[in-house]
Amino acid sequence: MDKKKWRTAISWHFDNEAYVRGYNLGELIGNLSFTEAIYLVLKGELPSEKEKQMLDAIFVSTVEHSIAPPSVIAARAVASGGNSLHVGVGAGILAFGEAHGGALEGAMRFLQENKDRDPEQVVREYFDRGERIPGYGHRYYKEYDPRTKRIMELAKEIGFFGKYCEFAVAVEKEIEKQKRKKLVMNVDGAIAAVVSEMGFDWRLGKGFFIIGRIPGLVAHVYEELTMEKPFSKRLDEEKEVEYLGKTPRELPPEYRRR
Amino acid sequence: MDKKKWRTAISWHFDNEAYVRGYNLGELIGNLSFTEAIYLVLKGELPSEKEKQMLDAIFVSTVEHSIAPPSVIAARAVASGGNSLHVGVGAGILAFGEAHGGALEGAMRFLQENKDRDPEQVVREYFDRGERIPGYGHRYYKEYDPRTKRIMELAKEIGFFGKYCEFAVAVEKEIEKQKRKKLVMNVDGAIAAVVSEMGFDWRLGKGFFIIGRIPGLVAHVYEELTMEKPFSKRLDEEKEVEYLGKTPRELPPEYRRR
Amino acid sequence: MDKKKWRTAISWHFDNEAYVRGYNLGELIGNLSFTEAIYLVLKGELPSEKEKQMLDAIFVSTVEHSIAPPSVIAARAVASGGNSLHVGVGAGILAFGEAHGGALEGAMRFLQENKDRDPEQVVREYFDRGERIPGYGHRYYKEYDPRTKRIMELAKEIGFFGKYCEFAVAVEKEIEKQKRKKLVMNVDGAIAAVVSEMGFDWRLGKGFFIIGRIPGLVAHVYEELTMEKPFSKRLDEEKEVEYLGKTPRELPPEYRRR
Amino acid sequence: MDKKKWRTAISWHFDNEAYVRGYNLGELIGNLSFTEAIYLVLKGELPSEKEKQMLDAIFVSTVEHSIAPPSVIAARAVASGGNSLHVGVGAGILAFGEAHGGALEGAMRFLQENKDRDPEQVVREYFDRGERIPGYGHRYYKEYDPRTKRIMELAKEIGFFGKYCEFAVAVEKEIEKQKRKKLVMNVDGAIAAVVSEMGFDWRLGKGFFIIGRIPGLVAHVYEELTMEKPFSKRLDEEKEVEYLGKTPRELPPEYRRR
Repeated sequence: MDKKKWRTAISWHFDNEAYVRGYNLGELIGNLSFTEAIYLVLKGELPSEKEKQMLDAIFVSTVEHSIAPPSVIAARAVASGGNSLHVGVGAGILAFGEAHGGALEGAMRFLQENKDRDPEQVVREYFDRGERIPGYGHRYYKEYDPRTKRIMELAKEIGFFGKYCEFAVAVEKEIEKQKRKKLVMNVDGAIAAVVSEMGFDWRLGKGFFIIGRIPGLVAHVYEELTMEKPFSKRLDEEKEVEYLGKTPRELPPEYRRR
Repeated sequence: MDKKKWRTAISWHFDNEAYVRGYNLGELIGNLSFTEAIYLVLKGELPSEKEKQMLDAIFVSTVEHSIAPPSVIAARAVASGGNSLHVGVGAGILAFGEAHGGALEGAMRFLQENKDRDPEQVVREYFDRGERIPGYGHRYYKEYDPRTKRIMELAKEIGFFGKYCEFAVAVEKEIEKQKRKKLVMNVDGAIAAVVSEMGFDWRLGKGFFIIGRIPGLVAHVYEELTMEKPFSKRLDEEKEVEYLGKTPRELPPEYRRR
Repeated sequence: MDKKKWRTAISWHFDNEAYVRGYNLGELIGNLSFTEAIYLVLKGELPSEKEKQMLDAIFVSTVEHSIAPPSVIAARAVASGGNSLHVGVGAGILAFGEAHGGALEGAMRFLQENKDRDPEQVVREYFDRGERIPGYGHRYYKEYDPRTKRIMELAKEIGFFGKYCEFAVAVEKEIEKQKRKKLVMNVDGAIAAVVSEMGFDWRLGKGFFIIGRIPGLVAHVYEELTMEKPFSKRLDEEKEVEYLGKTPRELPPEYRRR
Repeated sequence: MDKKKWRTAISWHFDNEAYVRGYNLGELIGNLSFTEAIYLVLKGELPSEKEKQMLDAIFVSTVEHSIAPPSVIAARAVASGGNSLHVGVGAGILAFGEAHGGALEGAMRFLQENKDRDPEQVVREYFDRGERIPGYGHRYYKEYDPRTKRIMELAKEIGFFGKYCEFAVAVEKEIEKQKRKKLVMNVDGAIAAVVSEMGFDWRLGKGFFIIGRIPGLVAHVYEELTMEKPFSKRLDEEKEVEYLGKTPRELPPEYRRR
């Protein structure tokens, strides 16, 4: 028999009741925290107390980060077109591309592919190829990123400061040495190290950002729908836009068909 | 036997070749214009020369309408997050809600449900209920909407100025009479009348706007991807945003768990 | 001065550090659970221990519910087109329309608009208008919905079984009395009652479903991307589709232009 | 002065009237065909008669291609969740990833980057690296792709069979020679050659597929909304899904907190 087109190991119904990764969903309600249930869904097993604490810290660090990013602009613009909450939120998630959350995935991949190698060598290769190492550098923070500091402290305290974190710190030092300029490990780099330590695959990386940031997007779309008029997100051509195109011109006679 | 979950009357393969509404797709290439093919896909039959001309006029009237609307803001913001062309365009379409293209659907429904009734009575009922009639009124145009004028002229010239258009014009006059103020038939109202005249169902209404405006969205996302840096669509909190929330406050001691 | 187009009360930067609802984000990391942070983002204030527990139960009840629903079909189909994780997840959320998560919003609205009225009267009005009351009835469960039972037990235990829950139960009884047939309060109805009890506005209703279900969507898209080949989500016309359209026909001579 | 964040060369308002690429939109209505307007929006100039004919053929070739592809599955699944037309169509477009329309972009890039080189050399390099050349090979068609044949004939007839088409044909021959097996130039390869001939940049490649296929997506979502019940797009776990996960297991005592 052919294998089926739709296959899954996540959840199933047994006797008309839903089971998630083998556990009766009804039993999980009231017993697990949301974070524990997320871990179960993603990893397939229940988290230890330490894993739960670490994951809570990570989700809290991404839960909301101002109205400024493209995801919020897109979400609120779509909402202002006269749409339901979920359509605005869906559009916001679409903005999480290479330049917006992509660094987390990139940093996880970098760490998982290189962690057993010599940091000096790894950094040199990147610089020789003229490539940036994902997870390092920040627009404002030049000494340290406060969120990185916090997450690394917690990783030590809770018990997730292992080979990935050590490698990530070693790379930060190597970059400074070879570049003679500090590029701080940013929050993407810090989360990448800790989540790798917890055994998550880099291909799932952006998922942590998506799950963590959704509450912020929901709040922004709700604000737009309840606080602003429809179609308020419209550019003022005169004040906000620069026109780089053609000035008015005549339609050539051969196109005047009527 | 149960009816199948997936059913369609649009296209099918016969002998490994694609047929659209019964016509061999290969044969249509080079013989039909895009507009004729669109009509065939949507209506199930080939258009006459007049139907093609009228539909061309309608699509041209919606093809692009400046960078200002929420759909373009969303499309370019999503693109600037570091996404491919189709993701930006998809987000742009999501903005076509009730307040952005929705008037076309609303106006078609209004005309199709009321066209055999007395315009005076119909308008009175709307005003008694305090409701706006979709397809009338415009921010700038107070005498007439130039696109409406053009589309109505073409409808007369080509032969689509029938009972829907007449009813639409009669309603415009009734509104002015009862309200003692002109609300011009806008471009949504004009397209609604003509497309109803061509026999299209109002539930398909927004489809004309979607198909017509996609080229504009494609051009905008392409411009964003080739002309601007990633993440350029980010708000400047200081200059562009007003903060209405709480000023900094202390985390209460019972929440300080570490 | 004109009010600004972009306004928010959710978060802001003070001295280059992010503050959410007035609290320094860095301080929240490691101190709050994810659920507490979600409550803060949505409600503007920190939750009590009881509110946290109740909200955890609600999110866990929605975290994943099999591969069957349209949201998972859409998410995995989009992923199989060769897209990144976030694009598949975004498409999945778009499926959360009126028929998929919409009952939660509807039930919250119903409860919030009617809770101070006489249940007998309210139910009678709905039945006289031939309308369904959102939050009641289930495909399989005819005696009780096990998730409802669980959530109501927890609401009593934790302390959220107040006027909304009482009204919701009274309506369930009235429906049975007037209809002479039980329509069980389903999980949407139960969550609606409890979330209303916690003081959340019905316009935010679908947000609880979106936030709660995202982990399941992330897991499904990750599974699709790592376990299946691209383009695997394609229908087999012969086996899965019923064709209701035209059989092959000749292109009329007047359309043969070459 | 800083350059503005929003910049465009596509369209603008002069004296409250819309101008597209410098032409008054009102004047274009009734004078241009939709395809001519699309060309203008994308390219910035009006097309010649030949360019219009060629572009019409290309859009017709992509207008609809059965219910089978992931884009239609996603679009109809989202619609069946209880959503408006535009939300279903938006989800459908999201499916146009690397594996679904991506070959057109890839083939354009391949042709534009290699067209002045020796085909034998180019093919050898790809095969030495073990890479597939985008635009060649088809699941069913082993001798020739009928759509490719048609488009190439039209390109010769209309006058667009130049260096890109010649190079594309030469590559097809080289592949057969070096691989001792024919990989037919598929429809993506054919369109890529012709569109390159017309001077379009490969980064715009997927745009031709998006614009061309939208009418099909609109028709499918309309069919779903008018012909099927909400939530009809739901998998039957027993018949359609294979479960690869854990069988029911007990929640360990340390997680039983109530």
